[in-house]
Amino acid sequence: MCQLLGMNCNVPTDIAFSFEGFRRRGGLTDEHSDGWGIGFFEAGAWRLFLDYLPSATSPVADFVRAYPIKSLNVLAHIRKATQGQLSLANTHPFRRELWGREWLLAHNGNLPELRYAGQRFRPLGDTDSEQAFCLLLDRLSAEFSTMPDTIALFAAIRRITAELAKAGSFNVLLGVEDLLFAHCSTQLHYLIRKAPFRHAHLADADVSINFAECTTPNDRAAIIATLPLTDNEAWIRLEPGSLTLFRAGQVELAG
Amino acid sequence: MCQLLGMNCNVPTDIAFSFEGFRRRGGLTDEHSDGWGIGFFEAGAWRLFLDYLPSATSPVADFVRAYPIKSLNVLAHIRKATQGQLSLANTHPFRRELWGREWLLAHNGNLPELRYAGQRFRPLGDTDSEQAFCLLLDRLSAEFSTMPDTIALFAAIRRITAELAKAGSFNVLLGVEDLLFAHCSTQLHYLIRKAPFRHAHLADADVSINFAECTTPNDRAAIIATLPLTDNEAWIRLEPGSLTLFRAGQVELAG
Repeated sequence: MCQLLGMNCNVPTDIAFSFEGFRRRGGLTDEHSDGWGIGFFEAGAWRLFLDYLPSATSPVADFVRAYPIKSLNVLAHIRKATQGQLSLANTHPFRRELWGREWLLAHNGNLPELRYAGQRFRPLGDTDSEQAFCLLLDRLSAEFSTMPDTIALFAAIRRITAELAKAGSFNVLLGVEDLLFAHCSTQLHYLIRKAPFRHAHLADADVSINFAECTTPNDRAAIIATLPLTDNEAWIRLEPGSLTLFRAGQVELAG
Repeated sequence: MCQLLGMNCNVPTDIAFSFEGFRRRGGLTDEHSDGWGIGFFEAGAWRLFLDYLPSATSPVADFVRAYPIKSLNVLAHIRKATQGQLSLANTHPFRRELWGREWLLAHNGNLPELRYAGQRFRPLGDTDSEQAFCLLLDRLSAEFSTMPDTIALFAAIRRITAELAKAGSFNVLLGVEDLLFAHCSTQLHYLIRKAPFRHAHLADADVSINFAECTTPNDRAAIIATLPLTDNEAWIRLEPGSLTLFRAGQVELAG
């Protein structure tokens, strides 16, 4: 299995603190050492870093940690391979363009019953996760010729993710522009950081931050993770079978 | 205008030496300071680094220089904006998936007469270059439902690039897996490095390398660049209006 991390904010924010705890699960505090990836939405496209080395020791992860990139929407994944070889083509997040917009998907779970060769969207690698991404985009593209409004998009993604979840477990983060969709099949948590800001302490390292010192009162950030990243904040467990849409650092739609 | 750099090899090779000279043209020895990008083909996908900062000073370029990645096929671009804002969505190389394969394109030139909104493939940003890429992939996708053989693919790309070149100037590198297509509209040079290997000296910095010390006798690499990168090797000028396909470090098809 793998681990997911998402961040969705109302002002561009760096993810250095959460990423520091998260990356340690890739080979140091946990066993997810079969590669990792992180995407930052930025000016119409995603800035994506991928590596099939463990995130705890990857030089690309050192670079991302040392060069904090501010973004409204961030999506990351560390991999414990269940299907597919160790390769760049099998490293999440996957990306595709649909309706002139770039989409990113990362998956935690296993879909042993899924076999999908793709139509318009076809997998580069041999993971169940990328097959699921291609199926989802093929369906959306068949249903809408341009980007629909958020309510119609949410309803369609709700229906398709529920169908995919029948093939196994499908905890997923799906990002497009400033929208972050989170489908929970078995395990996914979130919290909203907003004023009054306090200290936070990582669960995976003895590292603290006082968010009051690096935020303004209007800042808001939703953090979504497979398992809580801090041990002194109130993480909310998402309901199995639910889809949640985050925008501007808060829940916009859920069901 | 922009500058292009490609490398196509028969064994995975690092591009550190050529990249060092090339990146200096992005804000140091030349004026191409509106961003840059480089893609390395690796295990079924392209590892792509993009930045809209000048390549001479970009932290991402420092990282790429310090962490040499070996690849059979490399494609890079530094930008002097003619159309489109400075943003990640407007930074070359652009990428798309077609037939379950990932394609990369970088363009040097200007297509003032091109207006293409896209069909299946639509631009993320607002450059003429990405419009041309979408047009090329839309045409290929309409003509073939799966990847054709190399001769048929070359003929189709030859026809589409010739048509695009009528809209202005279209010097282009197009990469898919181990294939590197180079279309020359006005200016593009290449050389093949193979045994016996010698010293090479960069044109943009007083840096030399003795390739005899870091190669084996069977190694072969084609380097393609807008302008020669070294001042003591015999670069070959590509014919305006020609398309050349490089594979395994040599010219496979040309016309």
